[in-house]
Amino acid sequence: MFLTRSEYDRGVNTFSPEGRLFQVEYAIEAIKLGSTTVGVCTKEGVVLGVEKRVQSPLLVSSSIEKIMEIDRHLGCAMSGLIADARTMVDHARVTSQNHAFIYDERIKVESATQAVCDLALRFGESVHDEEAMMSRPFGVALLIAGVDENGPQLYHTDPSGTSVRYEAKAVGSGSEAAQSELQDKWHKQMTLKEAHILTLRVLKQVMEEKLDQHNVQLAQVTSDKGFEILDEVRLKALIDEMPV
Amino acid sequence: MFLTRSEYDRGVNTFSPEGRLFQVEYAIEAIKLGSTTVGVCTKEGVVLGVEKRVQSPLLVSSSIEKIMEIDRHLGCAMSGLIADARTMVDHARVTSQNHAFIYDERIKVESATQAVCDLALRFGESVHDEEAMMSRPFGVALLIAGVDENGPQLYHTDPSGTSVRYEAKAVGSGSEAAQSELQDKWHKQMTLKEAHILTLRVLKQVMEEKLDQHNVQLAQVTSDKGFEILDEVRLKALIDEMPV
Amino acid sequence: MFLTRSEYDRGVNTFSPEGRLFQVEYAIEAIKLGSTTVGVCTKEGVVLGVEKRVQSPLLVSSSIEKIMEIDRHLGCAMSGLIADARTMVDHARVTSQNHAFIYDERIKVESATQAVCDLALRFGESVHDEEAMMSRPFGVALLIAGVDENGPQLYHTDPSGTSVRYEAKAVGSGSEAAQSELQDKWHKQMTLKEAHILTLRVLKQVMEEKLDQHNVQLAQVTSDKGFEILDEVRLKALIDEMPV
Amino acid sequence: MFLTRSEYDRGVNTFSPEGRLFQVEYAIEAIKLGSTTVGVCTKEGVVLGVEKRVQSPLLVSSSIEKIMEIDRHLGCAMSGLIADARTMVDHARVTSQNHAFIYDERIKVESATQAVCDLALRFGESVHDEEAMMSRPFGVALLIAGVDENGPQLYHTDPSGTSVRYEAKAVGSGSEAAQSELQDKWHKQMTLKEAHILTLRVLKQVMEEKLDQHNVQLAQVTSDKGFEILDEVRLKALIDEMPV
Amino acid sequence: MFLTRSEYDRGVNTFSPEGRLFQVEYAIEAIKLGSTTVGVCTKEGVVLGVEKRVQSPLLVSSSIEKIMEIDRHLGCAMSGLIADARTMVDHARVTSQNHAFIYDERIKVESATQAVCDLALRFGESVHDEEAMMSRPFGVALLIAGVDENGPQLYHTDPSGTSVRYEAKAVGSGSEAAQSELQDKWHKQMTLKEAHILTLRVLKQVMEEKLDQHNVQLAQVTSDKGFEILDEVRLKALIDEMPV
Amino acid sequence: MFLTRSEYDRGVNTFSPEGRLFQVEYAIEAIKLGSTTVGVCTKEGVVLGVEKRVQSPLLVSSSIEKIMEIDRHLGCAMSGLIADARTMVDHARVTSQNHAFIYDERIKVESATQAVCDLALRFGESVHDEEAMMSRPFGVALLIAGVDENGPQLYHTDPSGTSVRYEAKAVGSGSEAAQSELQDKWHKQMTLKEAHILTLRVLKQVMEEKLDQHNVQLAQVTSDKGFEILDEVRLKALIDEMPV
Amino acid sequence: MFLTRSEYDRGVNTFSPEGRLFQVEYAIEAIKLGSTTVGVCTKEGVVLGVEKRVQSPLLVSSSIEKIMEIDRHLGCAMSGLIADARTMVDHARVTSQNHAFIYDERIKVESATQAVCDLALRFGESVHDEEAMMSRPFGVALLIAGVDENGPQLYHTDPSGTSVRYEAKAVGSGSEAAQSELQDKWHKQMTLKEAHILTLRVLKQVMEEKLDQHNVQLAQVTSDKGFEILDEVRLKALIDEMPV
Repeated sequence: MFLTRSEYDRGVNTFSPEGRLFQVEYAIEAIKLGSTTVGVCTKEGVVLGVEKRVQSPLLVSSSIEKIMEIDRHLGCAMSGLIADARTMVDHARVTSQNHAFIYDERIKVESATQAVCDLALRFGESVHDEEAMMSRPFGVALLIAGVDENGPQLYHTDPSGTSVRYEAKAVGSGSEAAQSELQDKWHKQMTLKEAHILTLRVLKQVMEEKLDQHNVQLAQVTSDKGFEILDEVRLKALIDEMPV
Repeated sequence: MFLTRSEYDRGVNTFSPEGRLFQVEYAIEAIKLGSTTVGVCTKEGVVLGVEKRVQSPLLVSSSIEKIMEIDRHLGCAMSGLIADARTMVDHARVTSQNHAFIYDERIKVESATQAVCDLALRFGESVHDEEAMMSRPFGVALLIAGVDENGPQLYHTDPSGTSVRYEAKAVGSGSEAAQSELQDKWHKQMTLKEAHILTLRVLKQVMEEKLDQHNVQLAQVTSDKGFEILDEVRLKALIDEMPV
Repeated sequence: MFLTRSEYDRGVNTFSPEGRLFQVEYAIEAIKLGSTTVGVCTKEGVVLGVEKRVQSPLLVSSSIEKIMEIDRHLGCAMSGLIADARTMVDHARVTSQNHAFIYDERIKVESATQAVCDLALRFGESVHDEEAMMSRPFGVALLIAGVDENGPQLYHTDPSGTSVRYEAKAVGSGSEAAQSELQDKWHKQMTLKEAHILTLRVLKQVMEEKLDQHNVQLAQVTSDKGFEILDEVRLKALIDEMPV
Repeated sequence: MFLTRSEYDRGVNTFSPEGRLFQVEYAIEAIKLGSTTVGVCTKEGVVLGVEKRVQSPLLVSSSIEKIMEIDRHLGCAMSGLIADARTMVDHARVTSQNHAFIYDERIKVESATQAVCDLALRFGESVHDEEAMMSRPFGVALLIAGVDENGPQLYHTDPSGTSVRYEAKAVGSGSEAAQSELQDKWHKQMTLKEAHILTLRVLKQVMEEKLDQHNVQLAQVTSDKGFEILDEVRLKALIDEMPV
Repeated sequence: MFLTRSEYDRGVNTFSPEGRLFQVEYAIEAIKLGSTTVGVCTKEGVVLGVEKRVQSPLLVSSSIEKIMEIDRHLGCAMSGLIADARTMVDHARVTSQNHAFIYDERIKVESATQAVCDLALRFGESVHDEEAMMSRPFGVALLIAGVDENGPQLYHTDPSGTSVRYEAKAVGSGSEAAQSELQDKWHKQMTLKEAHILTLRVLKQVMEEKLDQHNVQLAQVTSDKGFEILDEVRLKALIDEMPV
Repeated sequence: MFLTRSEYDRGVNTFSPEGRLFQVEYAIEAIKLGSTTVGVCTKEGVVLGVEKRVQSPLLVSSSIEKIMEIDRHLGCAMSGLIADARTMVDHARVTSQNHAFIYDERIKVESATQAVCDLALRFGESVHDEEAMMSRPFGVALLIAGVDENGPQLYHTDPSGTSVRYEAKAVGSGSEAAQSELQDKWHKQMTLKEAHILTLRVLKQVMEEKLDQHNVQLAQVTSDKGFEILDEVRLKALIDEMPV
Repeated sequence: MFLTRSEYDRGVNTFSPEGRLFQVEYAIEAIKLGSTTVGVCTKEGVVLGVEKRVQSPLLVSSSIEKIMEIDRHLGCAMSGLIADARTMVDHARVTSQNHAFIYDERIKVESATQAVCDLALRFGESVHDEEAMMSRPFGVALLIAGVDENGPQLYHTDPSGTSVRYEAKAVGSGSEAAQSELQDKWHKQMTLKEAHILTLRVLKQVMEEKLDQHNVQLAQVTSDKGFEILDEVRLKALIDEMPV
């Protein structure tokens, strides 16, 4: 009596008879086509790591931006459609600046994450305000890392507008293997440095190319220094330290 | 002469020849895919309980928010699409604050519930005001618990914009078994503590995992203390007290 | 040469080759799925009665609102999609208050009914004013009861925006049997009390459950007391008086 | 090479290869489903008559309004979707009042008719002014009767926005037989009384039920008394006078 | 590789692979379903003539308006959907009045024609100004006759928004035979009277009914008297003068 | 795996899998159905020539406007849907006047051409400004001729919004043969008169009818006299001078 | 269970089950139909080169604009739909001017590129601001070249709104062969002159016609002279210097 699945999956915002929203599920698939992204939370701070797919030797790998600053104490890494992520990060930045301006305090990591999720849910709306709205779900997952009065935190958001906090999380094409590696190796007492090495190990494991300072990028958020992307020198030093 | 059912079920707001609105019915199905949520009303107050699906050991279970405060004397638990619920809870919060501001009194539980239902009915409208509108039915059920001059009350809302008051109600994937358990065990003279234990028992019965303080959450609304989510210590104590 | 019926029935506002509007006809079907509602007009006043479907013993039956006050001298009972009815009743209430404010007199029963019908006809319009508009026909029938200078009156409205006055009218799933019972028993000299008993008898006849003060509700509109819903005590007394 | 007729007939405003607008033609079919309506013009004034379909003995037949006043010197009778007609009559009333206010003279019958036709043509427009617009053709025909400086006049309007003047005209389900009866009996020297009797005879001929003062309604527009609906006493007297 | 013609012909404004706009072509077909309309230009003035289809002896033929004044020196005759033509004529009248008001001179025949064509082209636009816009092509052809400083002129406009000047032109169902008759008989030295007779002859030839003063209408535009519709007396005299 | 071509060609602005926009390509086809239009650029000025299709001897050929002035120093000839061209020319005229008003200098030929192209690209937009927008590509090609400080220039624009400058260019149904004739005969030292003769020769070659002063039109733009359409006397003289 | 690819590829913004956006991918195909465009970055500056397809000897090749200035220190070359590129370049120019006006400094190359990408992502939005929005993805790739405080830079943008920096990059129909040639020959110490020669060599290799100063165009951006298009004299000199 029902139609097959395929009949319900093109309306951007239509329930199937089982109560599913297929366009949102397909957007989640877009993330699985993306490169692998890893986040690791420790008591000293949060580490974010991404794989860069350098398709040509003439490509300047530093121009591939998959880790971005949101605020002094907040950053994120992404997997999926990078152009979509930019809209979300811009929204998070504005929300964060507004918060600082109005309340004279840094936005909480959870509130910034929530702002991103609210935006994600609003696709398909015919809004009339100044901020233009996507006509489809955002095809991107973010790992949002930050430090606030509750200490270092790592959040994961997906196209359905859901966010959950993780101790360590991997998304993207290699996420399955990466997540189980994280589960094996992560422990509460990890130092920031151990988190760096763990992030690199996890990325190394899922990448086809040989990992070097050009095709991965690391960032960290700590309470004293805030968000910082590691330069190639520091990154190379870490890679050299990795146990074989 | 009629088409089969499937021909009418994709228009968000189209009647079938029998007078049914299938997209609303499918949204109700989305709730059956959700985790189980339970509410129990007693003379001392209302208890809300939810199952949390902790998909990974690295997930921070306290970040799964399925019970939320609406006002000092009002809270709700949800089952279905959590992101949809947030929009509804925000609407209820604003309505509640406005009421308090204008009339200098707490909103009634029934009025707050009605505000949520009015919002639920308005999907698919092309509105031009500031509050953006969903282009599909909300895929979520709320159990709204509160205390006002009429005493403790528990309301249930669904995607059709209908609300009904219950003494005890279960929604979500395990709702059928849970509801019949509630029917067996609930009685008018129940204490708040008995309601806590009943809520936990009902959840335990429908959950696949072993129930502990990480994968369930309890809240209560009482006339003296208002809405409060039980912390893990109190929750663990209650679980330990549960009869085997 | 023509298509079969089914090809014309999904456009909310499209004529079929025979000049029919199927979506409106299907909305009328939604009413036939609803519980039975009865109205009886006498010289002393109008009686409204509804069946409540109490699906669970834990459901608080008084929270099922199928009879609502419009103004001091005006009320209505409904059958079909209850959430749709709320929008119509709100519209009737505002119209009635405006009339009282502007002309310093109570709105006539016919005028209030007309306001509801005007709203019913406007679905599918892309309006730009403040009152949001339904994108499909309203799936509800109202029995509007009131008393004005022309005495007690009972009106029936349906999704096509048509209203007609009746001496006694039944709508909903049991309406066919109920209407013929009304035709047999109604007479011009009926007292208000006889109308109460007739309403209960008609409901009893079409209900599957045993009629009691929890699963039916009665209201009346009289010239001296206006609109009032009978409390459970009065209702129980009436049920006890019913001839077996 | 062409598609069959049925492929062009659902777009509300799409030409078929032969240059036809099917939705307008189908709206005209809606009129043929309506009850019969008759208008007769004489030198003394115009007579309008309608059949009422009294579906239940408990229905108050006087609440079926198929003849309505537009202005003191103008009225109309309708066949088809009554709810649609109300919108047109409201438009005609406002136009007529505006004319009187601005020019301090009664609107001409032809101008009032033209205003109705202009409205009929405008369906499907996406207008942004205050008057909401139908998204389909109006499914109703009006017989507009009035007296102005050019004497008594009778106009017929249809869903295509066309109006023509007639000496005598019948519309609705029995219009074919009725029109040929009018052609046989109408003559220029007819008195108003003869027009009343002719109108009743024509209705009697096409009605299935026995004609009485409850299931027909008559109105007249004369230069001295303007528009008036005949009360049941006058109507009964006329029916009694009818030759068998 | 291409679809058949029929797949492209329902989008109101979609090109077929050969570069054709079928909805405009179908609108032109609507004109061929209309009654025949003739225009003849002479040095003394322009003559317009139309066939009226008097479907019932009770119809008042003078109420069929197919020739209309635009301004003192400008008129037009139409074939196709009369209700559409009214919108165009209203637009031409307003344009003409505005021109007179702003420039204190009569609008040129060509400019008035151009205003009509500009309107014809704009169907399907979603405009936001005060003048509402058709959602399909106008299904009507106009013969616009006028006299200005360039002497008497006759223009033809069609649904594609194209206008061309003619010495003599016929449109509508009998246009083919009529046009070839005009080609045979028209000459530059024709008097206005000869044009009247020619117009009547051409109409007589294509009409099924016997031509009389009720089923045709003539108008003329001359430099001294401007636009005038011939009354039935003058019309009858002309018909009587026609050579058999 | 791909659909056939025909499945992508009706969305006004949808890419096919090969990256093509079929509706734009079909609009270009509309031009090939049009009459032939020729432009020739010389050092003395630019010549434009068009074929007129005089479908009836009663048609006044001078009313077929396929060559239009844009500004004193700018004109254009067109092939395709003439009504579409008018919108473009109006836009070019306004742009040109605005330029003159703001900068007190004549607009450059290239800038005026660019304004036309910008308009062409904007079809299908839902704009909210005063200038209404086409819902399909413009089905017309323009040859824009002008003289500015860079001397005489000839530009060609097509429905895709592309413009290119040519020394000599032919468009329309006979463009293939015409263009190769232009290629053979055009040379840099051509005089304006030679360009006139070349234009006529090219038109003569592709026209089915015998070329005379009624079925072709010539215009020229020179630095001293600007844009001028040749009257029939000059045109006839040129035709008589043509070598057989 | 899934539909084939073709069922998902016409919605401008719909995910396929694998998470792909086909209309964006098809827009990228439009670029592969375009002529070849090359960019080469050196320490002295950036060189841009394009192939011009001169379809007729009468076409004035200098009017084919595929390299455009954005600001004094910024330019771009394009491949794909040229008319689309103009909109993007206009946007970049305005953004650049605004930046200069507000901050009194030249916009960075990366920021200007970002502005173009933001625009690319916004197709399909129903915006209400002044800048009109495309209803499909932009079918064009840009190579943006500029010099700022970070030295000479070359960016590549595509229809998905993604931008990446390259040392040397080729796009368009011959891009595959061209890119591998660039990979072979490009080196960090290249002089600007060597970059000119490399660009020409790469173009020569992929062009079907013999390369000359009319069918290619070169531009360069250097820190001292900013953006400049090489005139035909310099271009011819470079071509003559090319090793055979």
